[in-house]
Amino acid sequence: MSVDGRLALIALACLVEPGNRELGMLLRQHGPARALHLLLDGQQPSPALVESVHGRLETLAVHDVGRFAEEALEHAARLGARIVTPLDEEWPMQFADLARISRDDGDRQHRDTDPPVCLWVRGAPLLAEALDRSVAIVGSRAASSYGQHVAGELAYGLAMRDWTVVSGGAFGIDAAAHRATIAAGGLTVAVLACGVDKPYPVSHGGLFEQITDDGLLISEWPPGAAPYRMRFLTRNRVIAAATRGTVMVEAGARSGARNTLTHARLLHRPAMVVPGPVTSAVSVGCHAELRRPGTMLVSRFDEVIEEIGAVGELSALPQGAERPEDVLDATGQRLLDAVQVRKALSAEEIAAGAGLSGREARRTLPLLEMYGFVVATESGSYRLAPRPRTAEVTPQD
Amino acid sequence: MSVDGRLALIALACLVEPGNRELGMLLRQHGPARALHLLLDGQQPSPALVESVHGRLETLAVHDVGRFAEEALEHAARLGARIVTPLDEEWPMQFADLARISRDDGDRQHRDTDPPVCLWVRGAPLLAEALDRSVAIVGSRAASSYGQHVAGELAYGLAMRDWTVVSGGAFGIDAAAHRATIAAGGLTVAVLACGVDKPYPVSHGGLFEQITDDGLLISEWPPGAAPYRMRFLTRNRVIAAATRGTVMVEAGARSGARNTLTHARLLHRPAMVVPGPVTSAVSVGCHAELRRPGTMLVSRFDEVIEEIGAVGELSALPQGAERPEDVLDATGQRLLDAVQVRKALSAEEIAAGAGLSGREARRTLPLLEMYGFVVATESGSYRLAPRPRTAEVTPQD
Repeated sequence: MSVDGRLALIALACLVEPGNRELGMLLRQHGPARALHLLLDGQQPSPALVESVHGRLETLAVHDVGRFAEEALEHAARLGARIVTPLDEEWPMQFADLARISRDDGDRQHRDTDPPVCLWVRGAPLLAEALDRSVAIVGSRAASSYGQHVAGELAYGLAMRDWTVVSGGAFGIDAAAHRATIAAGGLTVAVLACGVDKPYPVSHGGLFEQITDDGLLISEWPPGAAPYRMRFLTRNRVIAAATRGTVMVEAGARSGARNTLTHARLLHRPAMVVPGPVTSAVSVGCHAELRRPGTMLVSRFDEVIEEIGAVGELSALPQGAERPEDVLDATGQRLLDAVQVRKALSAEEIAAGAGLSGREARRTLPLLEMYGFVVATESGSYRLAPRPRTAEVTPQD
Repeated sequence: MSVDGRLALIALACLVEPGNRELGMLLRQHGPARALHLLLDGQQPSPALVESVHGRLETLAVHDVGRFAEEALEHAARLGARIVTPLDEEWPMQFADLARISRDDGDRQHRDTDPPVCLWVRGAPLLAEALDRSVAIVGSRAASSYGQHVAGELAYGLAMRDWTVVSGGAFGIDAAAHRATIAAGGLTVAVLACGVDKPYPVSHGGLFEQITDDGLLISEWPPGAAPYRMRFLTRNRVIAAATRGTVMVEAGARSGARNTLTHARLLHRPAMVVPGPVTSAVSVGCHAELRRPGTMLVSRFDEVIEEIGAVGELSALPQGAERPEDVLDATGQRLLDAVQVRKALSAEEIAAGAGLSGREARRTLPLLEMYGFVVATESGSYRLAPRPRTAEVTPQD
């Protein structure tokens, strides 16, 4: 029994849970057709994988895997979806990076991090193009109104600058990011942990329809797959790998969003976090991540672009309102501190107050007069110019 | 005319603005008595410093500097204060570190960073003892109620663990930190940018009295000195140098508290920042600092102690509530995901759903039964145990 590469990939995507490391190694070593053949024949070194594949074949009553894969294609088409494989032109190259962390990292928690074998896709844009300039915004389902507001602001700003916003379609932060992107007329992609035929959560049906109007719903699981808890963790690596960086907006101590951020870090992509009040339980995970090296705090969308964008897309630095005194150097500011409102003082008295030399005062006070900070009397003394500035005591704050 | 070292230091503290780098170098090279002599004689290489000293001598009508210093001592005593010099036993050694950044850093903004020459002190505790285990809490005068709450929580927690809380006596964060320390029965120190006789702001008179009941009011400026704007910047280095680390709670983009944090960093002391909502103008400076390398985010007092404390004073990691499923490994959790509430499934069916081998399912399901997660039927199938756990869909969050 021989199946072409593309059909083999589709069959494998239905028969093996996504991210499987043994399957990934088999695929890279033998290619899809031979990998499938070896698994069906039981001729490969992971008996657990062989057994699980045969278990699924039995449960699904599959007799001909080629026909089974063709049926999967037809079924997807009937649902208005398509299956995209690494052999197709629209496959995004960046997923390949997942194979690297899979090889490097023996950690149990990050075992199932191999690249997707296939993706079920709903929506018109080509996958690779949609994800080329993309950023992930993830966070808590139990988000506060603050978190939803900030996620929306970030997504809106990024969408306006032509960035695709990727998230998980969940309540809270995810939904706020998707919705703001749509409001900005941008492109958004929801990566699901279940089949694209029954996107979870069900009450987001309207949102999912809106997403597919211009953007994409994608999943590694075939139609019908239920959103098991562990599948969200497996799915998170796809969100991190699809994008140039991940922004976490709100996350409790145990939020799954932290797992997405960890994957971004393992992929050497920017791991960005928005802080919140330290009194908020849904920011505890954010602050814990910000205490780890390699996490960048972001508070505005242009700071996100600074991390993920090309040169020339840099953000401006935050600046407070300018004060007239900003034009002065330290000597000028110290002298100005010592000038009084009511009593005119000589240059020497002002110098003594400021702890500067009379020479410095005599050189600088005329400049202060020229800039309108002080007024000179006829006797050559100085007092503060009568204009609305806070006198004497204005510590910088 | 010859003056002893201690009196020379007191005279110099009255005649030269604090932090002066030329004076610091002169003191380290020649000692106080000779440094004063050289300045009075005009025999030292900084004509600006010589001239400013002579300007002050003239303004203050000083004819005998020895007598002048003695009068300063008497004046301080009449005010209920004392003058502490580096020659006194209660002088804190840690101020010497300021000489190092003064030498290393040619930056204009950090020119006046030499150690204090003297300190005017009000309050009973010995200065060095009070500052031995101390931490600075600084921030915006225009603090929000959030900022004041967090500053208070931090100060209270630190005071309860026997840490002295140092701040600047200003409105907002400073006041919240002082007040919470007093409420905890702890020791607090206010470092002023004006004379200890007229502590600024005037409306904090009651607070300053409370501070001196158990703690200290200290200043580098002699009684009568006004709180000029630039003096706050000069003062900030003392707050950073007195303590084992600085915590900034709220700060606008231009807050003077950022200058204190910069000094902590220059002194290689922990520079800690509490984040806030990114929508808050008084957290903009905090987030800008957190984007700089070498700044540590802190959200609780024990995280502060982790940075500044001795080994054994470590904080616990933040932990979410435990779930029963936490006892399971990934295989157990994946199997549990695939078990259903209503329909009993065979081990093979569960394995197929979970993408695991039948062998793994047959080995692990009895353990899940033992732990009470699943119930086995007589035919050897499994369904979810009837107890209040969220079924099927519970992504970690």
